Amino acid sequence: MSDAIKVLDHGFVRLVDTMGDEQAIVDAARVSYQQGTQKTRNNRGLIRYLMRRGHTSPLEMCELKIHVKMPIFVARQWIRHRTASLNEVSGRYSVLPSEFYLPEKDCIKMQSKQNKQGGSEPVSSSIASVVQDVMKEGALQNYQDYENILQGYGVCEIARETARMVLPLSLYTEMYWKIDLHNLLHFLRLRLDSHAQYEIRVYAEAIAKIVQDWVPIVWEAFVDYKLEAHPFSRQEMDVIRRVFASYEGDGSVQGTPREVREFFAAVALKES
Amino acid sequence: MSDAIKVLDHGFVRLVDTMGDEQAIVDAARVSYQQGTQKTRNNRGLIRYLMRRGHTSPLEMCELKIHVKMPIFVARQWIRHRTASLNEVSGRYSVLPSEFYLPEKDCIKMQSKQNKQGGSEPVSSSIASVVQDVMKEGALQNYQDYENILQGYGVCEIARETARMVLPLSLYTEMYWKIDLHNLLHFLRLRLDSHAQYEIRVYAEAIAKIVQDWVPIVWEAFVDYKLEAHPFSRQEMDVIRRVFASYEGDGSVQGTPREVREFFAAVALKES
Amino acid sequence: MSDAIKVLDHGFVRLVDTMGDEQAIVDAARVSYQQGTQKTRNNRGLIRYLMRRGHTSPLEMCELKIHVKMPIFVARQWIRHRTASLNEVSGRYSVLPSEFYLPEKDCIKMQSKQNKQGGSEPVSSSIASVVQDVMKEGALQNYQDYENILQGYGVCEIARETARMVLPLSLYTEMYWKIDLHNLLHFLRLRLDSHAQYEIRVYAEAIAKIVQDWVPIVWEAFVDYKLEAHPFSRQEMDVIRRVFASYEGDGSVQGTPREVREFFAAVALKES
Amino acid sequence: MSDAIKVLDHGFVRLVDTMGDEQAIVDAARVSYQQGTQKTRNNRGLIRYLMRRGHTSPLEMCELKIHVKMPIFVARQWIRHRTASLNEVSGRYSVLPSEFYLPEKDCIKMQSKQNKQGGSEPVSSSIASVVQDVMKEGALQNYQDYENILQGYGVCEIARETARMVLPLSLYTEMYWKIDLHNLLHFLRLRLDSHAQYEIRVYAEAIAKIVQDWVPIVWEAFVDYKLEAHPFSRQEMDVIRRVFASYEGDGSVQGTPREVREFFAAVALKES
Repeated sequence: MSDAIKVLDHGFVRLVDTMGDEQAIVDAARVSYQQGTQKTRNNRGLIRYLMRRGHTSPLEMCELKIHVKMPIFVARQWIRHRTASLNEVSGRYSVLPSEFYLPEKDCIKMQSKQNKQGGSEPVSSSIASVVQDVMKEGALQNYQDYENILQGYGVCEIARETARMVLPLSLYTEMYWKIDLHNLLHFLRLRLDSHAQYEIRVYAEAIAKIVQDWVPIVWEAFVDYKLEAHPFSRQEMDVIRRVFASYEGDGSVQGTPREVREFFAAVALKES
Repeated sequence: MSDAIKVLDHGFVRLVDTMGDEQAIVDAARVSYQQGTQKTRNNRGLIRYLMRRGHTSPLEMCELKIHVKMPIFVARQWIRHRTASLNEVSGRYSVLPSEFYLPEKDCIKMQSKQNKQGGSEPVSSSIASVVQDVMKEGALQNYQDYENILQGYGVCEIARETARMVLPLSLYTEMYWKIDLHNLLHFLRLRLDSHAQYEIRVYAEAIAKIVQDWVPIVWEAFVDYKLEAHPFSRQEMDVIRRVFASYEGDGSVQGTPREVREFFAAVALKES
Repeated sequence: MSDAIKVLDHGFVRLVDTMGDEQAIVDAARVSYQQGTQKTRNNRGLIRYLMRRGHTSPLEMCELKIHVKMPIFVARQWIRHRTASLNEVSGRYSVLPSEFYLPEKDCIKMQSKQNKQGGSEPVSSSIASVVQDVMKEGALQNYQDYENILQGYGVCEIARETARMVLPLSLYTEMYWKIDLHNLLHFLRLRLDSHAQYEIRVYAEAIAKIVQDWVPIVWEAFVDYKLEAHPFSRQEMDVIRRVFASYEGDGSVQGTPREVREFFAAVALKES
Repeated sequence: MSDAIKVLDHGFVRLVDTMGDEQAIVDAARVSYQQGTQKTRNNRGLIRYLMRRGHTSPLEMCELKIHVKMPIFVARQWIRHRTASLNEVSGRYSVLPSEFYLPEKDCIKMQSKQNKQGGSEPVSSSIASVVQDVMKEGALQNYQDYENILQGYGVCEIARETARMVLPLSLYTEMYWKIDLHNLLHFLRLRLDSHAQYEIRVYAEAIAKIVQDWVPIVWEAFVDYKLEAHPFSRQEMDVIRRVFASYEGDGSVQGTPREVREFFAAVALKES
């Protein structure tokens, strides 16, 4: 059982188990393509080909299971990814522990005007202090209420499922989470994005490290063809093609011969 | 657009749209079974046969879309049903309104000893009053903190995604939720169960009414073959067969000839 | 890599990999239920409780990957189970080998009148021989046509994706197939059923053996609470309750105290 | 019930039902984003924004149901899209009709050397004739065998589930197929691609027409941001940025101010 990676003030990501590796992806792909893959010299070439072409089904042959502890408002975003299995601690069965997320000062930001869903610049240190204090006090008061209700003010034990309603979204929760590699990469693409909320992005970053260690060639291909790739719209492609009309080519396009050929086709250039 | 059904103190279930009806189920089943369904005289017989046999794919041909408003702790149970589509109000994009669930006095119960996940008897009225007061005060204080943080204590607007962390699980949220009839019935089976938390059960009951109006024959079959059916384990079946060994039969078994035949087979009796 | 289990004349099921075991199920369940599971003395008790109650999410924490070779008409039934990952050999990429399923004589049956979807008694040996001969000849002729088309009658190589159209549904195909334990048990429940076609049932039986070796306590619980359990409809329960009205009880109901209590509740008897 | 669109020689796509329209997408999005969408002047702008940003959940609020008739080898590709509901004619319940796909002469192509999965140039007319004849004869012989087996050579009716094994992959099958708009667009993106097999591509084209009539603004956005968009890899983006280093800008970039800004950011240019 691996060590947990600390995330935020009380959270973590802990690798529990994996199924499969890069060889497993290649084995599954070769079942599908057989003769179609004969010429592919090596695993790396095949994996990059699969990623580039969006032939994602062999990636589903790998599976990751982690144990995660995160604030409830993060869990609520997380669980929107439906193609995964999970077991979360239940506030009906258990008394939830007193652990709350308190943002660092420089994570308390002004509401962005352009990005409706996020923040922009950190607020001043003094305002941040006030916010932290209010958050901390509120959370402690909520937890005090929770305990009091649980204990029925000394008279009778009240149902956990009722008492928990007073707990705030900053409370930490835990889950086992299991997902296949294809769907995991999709999760990471969305949650590593600069528009993702900081507090889930740091979990995505911790998981990205695990993936990078686990299947480094897949990760590299994912970065090249998905994470740092850029899609241009039909209209933008018109501009790109016009600009490239006067491009002479300088041999600098990297990739397999097929990739180079396709790049030139995309920008509507004869190969120089 | 239909009227909303009120649920809990501030919640509702509002039917937005449906796709298909009982004829649509029958049409789809007849594509599959064609000659296999020729003898089935009518839609009712066919639908009951499908339900009894667990031939659920034709039920997927119907779809329900509702608009629901429920407390966050209910939404968190709801969303565990993954085979559905949803759009929930986002606390990153919007300022969330000040509406909290406050349980009725007789919904504040003692923790059950036998049912780890639920409550048993209501607490005394005086304790219930205290709990209600504490819940109300806590929620109002949380919301006050939320507004103060949003306004940065008069200095600057702070990001909604940060401020919302202080809100409690009793806060109301809203979503559009769309699901096919097969998966909806599975949801209802779990959430109408006496072990489901009261606060989600009342939503399930409201949806059950909608389903009953929409596809009454399906609903009746669902009640007979799923909701009020009972599965006996291998060991229990041994007892039942032993007890039935001295059963003479009294013509009281209802159902199609096939059902009667199968009942007698199940209890290991020759047909009387 | 384990040995393949032979199925039908040219097929097999080969275990490729598993993720998790019974401890993994218990670990995930304990994350959810924590205090709720404290009293459960052992893994066996907890697993049986989960199966009986339909708390299936911890079962999703285990995953099975197999390599299967089966006739195309079996693959077409198999693939209806959507919650799985698979890579099947592609007739576009590869020339498909000349292997066809030929049923054993006693698998060639008369069309059942009662069971629209299946056969009843085997036909006579002489008719069976004729059918086998026709099937064999037809398949060989189809494959000869396939090869001729591929080779363009000596003139040019024709596209595999076109040539394969002439191949029959009895042709063998191969796939890697990966599924979680919960969905696998659902697959097995349907495909071990006596109404399932013989040719897929034998694959289910081979997989059942693998599951039994892998997670024996889960398998036992699955047999007791699902496979050999029997659900009685609302109407049938009325009969059962009436018959049990004169049942004295003889201490023969097996199970945990809770199960015994619930059995008596189900048959509407006071515990004797 | 709408008229069927003819596809291939005996196939069709027939619209059965839809749920929702562009207003339904907008309604669902506004539940999520509320204040975040206040400034978006109109439905068209909002829908294009959702498509561009990959905010696909509101698209799931629309649903399409069609009745399709296609050859079995097409059905086998089709069914790989798992997030859909379907009811297909069953060869266990019904005698399958004698209808086979016979490719037009110019659809019989040479195997492509570069595209492992497809064809290139049509073969000569004389070879194509031979192939057609062989396909036709083979299919008729297969069907004759099927009928003979079904009739047990006059002696007894043999099980349909057995007899069907001799039928070829060119046989037509039928299904009801229901899918949400998000997953439908994904299906169309893959199956309208030039690498998709011709025989499924023509079905995708028929469905594309239905979608275009149903939700024209969604379709337009899909074409601009997905179908005719082009993703460049990390390495390709380096080349594009270098080429654009000497681009002066000519005001020709179309789109919303935000899109123009983001285009210039992507190509690493200061806005001219």
